[in-house]
Amino acid sequence: MGRVYLDWNATAPLRQEVRAAMLAALDVAGNPSSVHAEGRAARALVERARGEVAALVGCKPSEVVFTSGATEAAGILAHVPPHGAVCVDETAHDALWAHLDLTHAEGGANVLAKGLANSETGVITEPPARDEDGAYPYGAIRCGSLFLDVTQAAGRIPWSFHWSGADMACVSAHKIGGPKGVGALIVREGLDIGAVQKGGGQELGRRSGTENVAGIAGFGAAATAALRDMDAGVWAGVEKLRNILESSLASGAKGTIFVGNDRPRLPNTSCFVTPGWKGETQVMQMDLAGFAVSSGSACSSGKVKTPRVLAAMGLDQAAAESALRVSLGPETTEEDVLRFAETWLRHEKKFRQRAA
Amino acid sequence: MGRVYLDWNATAPLRQEVRAAMLAALDVAGNPSSVHAEGRAARALVERARGEVAALVGCKPSEVVFTSGATEAAGILAHVPPHGAVCVDETAHDALWAHLDLTHAEGGANVLAKGLANSETGVITEPPARDEDGAYPYGAIRCGSLFLDVTQAAGRIPWSFHWSGADMACVSAHKIGGPKGVGALIVREGLDIGAVQKGGGQELGRRSGTENVAGIAGFGAAATAALRDMDAGVWAGVEKLRNILESSLASGAKGTIFVGNDRPRLPNTSCFVTPGWKGETQVMQMDLAGFAVSSGSACSSGKVKTPRVLAAMGLDQAAAESALRVSLGPETTEEDVLRFAETWLRHEKKFRQRAA
Repeated sequence: MGRVYLDWNATAPLRQEVRAAMLAALDVAGNPSSVHAEGRAARALVERARGEVAALVGCKPSEVVFTSGATEAAGILAHVPPHGAVCVDETAHDALWAHLDLTHAEGGANVLAKGLANSETGVITEPPARDEDGAYPYGAIRCGSLFLDVTQAAGRIPWSFHWSGADMACVSAHKIGGPKGVGALIVREGLDIGAVQKGGGQELGRRSGTENVAGIAGFGAAATAALRDMDAGVWAGVEKLRNILESSLASGAKGTIFVGNDRPRLPNTSCFVTPGWKGETQVMQMDLAGFAVSSGSACSSGKVKTPRVLAAMGLDQAAAESALRVSLGPETTEEDVLRFAETWLRHEKKFRQRAA
Repeated sequence: MGRVYLDWNATAPLRQEVRAAMLAALDVAGNPSSVHAEGRAARALVERARGEVAALVGCKPSEVVFTSGATEAAGILAHVPPHGAVCVDETAHDALWAHLDLTHAEGGANVLAKGLANSETGVITEPPARDEDGAYPYGAIRCGSLFLDVTQAAGRIPWSFHWSGADMACVSAHKIGGPKGVGALIVREGLDIGAVQKGGGQELGRRSGTENVAGIAGFGAAATAALRDMDAGVWAGVEKLRNILESSLASGAKGTIFVGNDRPRLPNTSCFVTPGWKGETQVMQMDLAGFAVSSGSACSSGKVKTPRVLAAMGLDQAAAESALRVSLGPETTEEDVLRFAETWLRHEKKFRQRAA
């Protein structure tokens, strides 16, 4: 039997239509900044993809700034605002968390950065509403603008940049079946931001550097496919499988706690804690048994750190270290889920026997 | 007859072996930060490419930090040194020029940033030697470290990071037949730099963000192919064609000046000025006639600005605006060059007739 990939929140397998779009783009030799025919052909691919990404996230094409990923897009937090605080929600991804800076909180030009859906638990927390003065509260600090990380949410739940009221957002191609290494910063029209990256002046001066043309073309194709999947109700099917998984596990493992299952969650994510059985150990055992799962955000793997996100959800350190994340995708089958549940329960029983 | 691509300094066509390496990498689903088999397979591709790029530029694999391109790599100039000046050579690319900052020149932790080979003229200027106190002079400012942009030189002329004495360097995949949107920052072992990009902590904390695995794999394949081409003496053949081109043009167009042809130059680049005949016009006329050439650095195209680089070489504004850049590659044939020369000379004659 082949391996079963249940780590879609770390990265999604490449979609076939993305592969085709990238192959076609790799054959376009020009630099999008060149004015000759070869350059214009490359430019056309970038602009087409811009429209496709804009359609997925509900913004204007001119509000899309292509970057090398969501992490680079979040780097704008280091430039905006010039004299304000960067307040970061405690469940936000490290890419945002790295920019937490409350030094200039008195300044007023503060920005609140948060994730829409948490990568480790799938829990969705809607951004706070603006208060009567149009500010977002962060403890005693009042933030004038909102940066929303929709990396895990885009293409999985209905969401629109314009409806959300966010000023900025970041998305990543590889979470929706596009290639790794490309993403976008979405910036509300009229918002005067600095450059994410300085140099030759590409992306209207907001992000210099020769564009990743094949990656961007792949991102566009992934956005179109993701939108089509959402319209077709694909994620309702994924959610059904996730619920079958959780019921199966719960029926066999009485001590296991499902994190966030009483709250709005992404349809594909299950995070569960089996006290005393380390998440890292579970990942290795499942890997040997043929399943790719995770004990946390992929980019945090292998690092010893306080599991901030799970702690923020009320779990203590020991419990947080015993968490496993299983994340499904449109290609996941019921057989995948049942095979995983059976295998995991077998190991959980052994764990209990050893612990006894 | 097909089109002739003579704009290799803007971007080189993708090599076939790069395409194959990228295709294989696109099928590897894992995130390189994941510990399971799929993640380790992706990690292996990245580490293999790191060795290939290190071999091309003459450094250790651990000194290679993958980025989204040379522009991102040059962004380290905004972080290093913390309290010093960033001095930029006037012929350097805009990606370096954007970081010119002489504010803290008294601080001492100054860095000199320069290009090894100029993108527009191909002229090679070796970095200055360290003086007796180990500093690089920049007017009255003394710089303790050197950042060298070898984007146009790498893979075209023999060069080694370790031999050069540079502390940092930047390279780009798409100039050597790799994909657009990937490059590397080379950092001397032991040099404590900040992060190019903050977040999840990838690339040993020096550049966060999920790696562009397919792009990096393509970069590695391009580096290996470029090294093989250099070993095989491919660029001597390219230089011969460049010289045939210049002789052909010179024999017909008496008023045309070849920039830098009395100085060490890249073997593939020809930059020539025909006073009064605007470079932009030439580019358009050649494009319509089936040739892709450039009137300057691709990322500067379309922008009205002082042609800093040509001015630095002693040309006045009018002359600099009448420059055309023709850049060849290993796939360029003698027929390509002769066809271009014939076509260009026909237009040059018409230009002189109109001007008379």
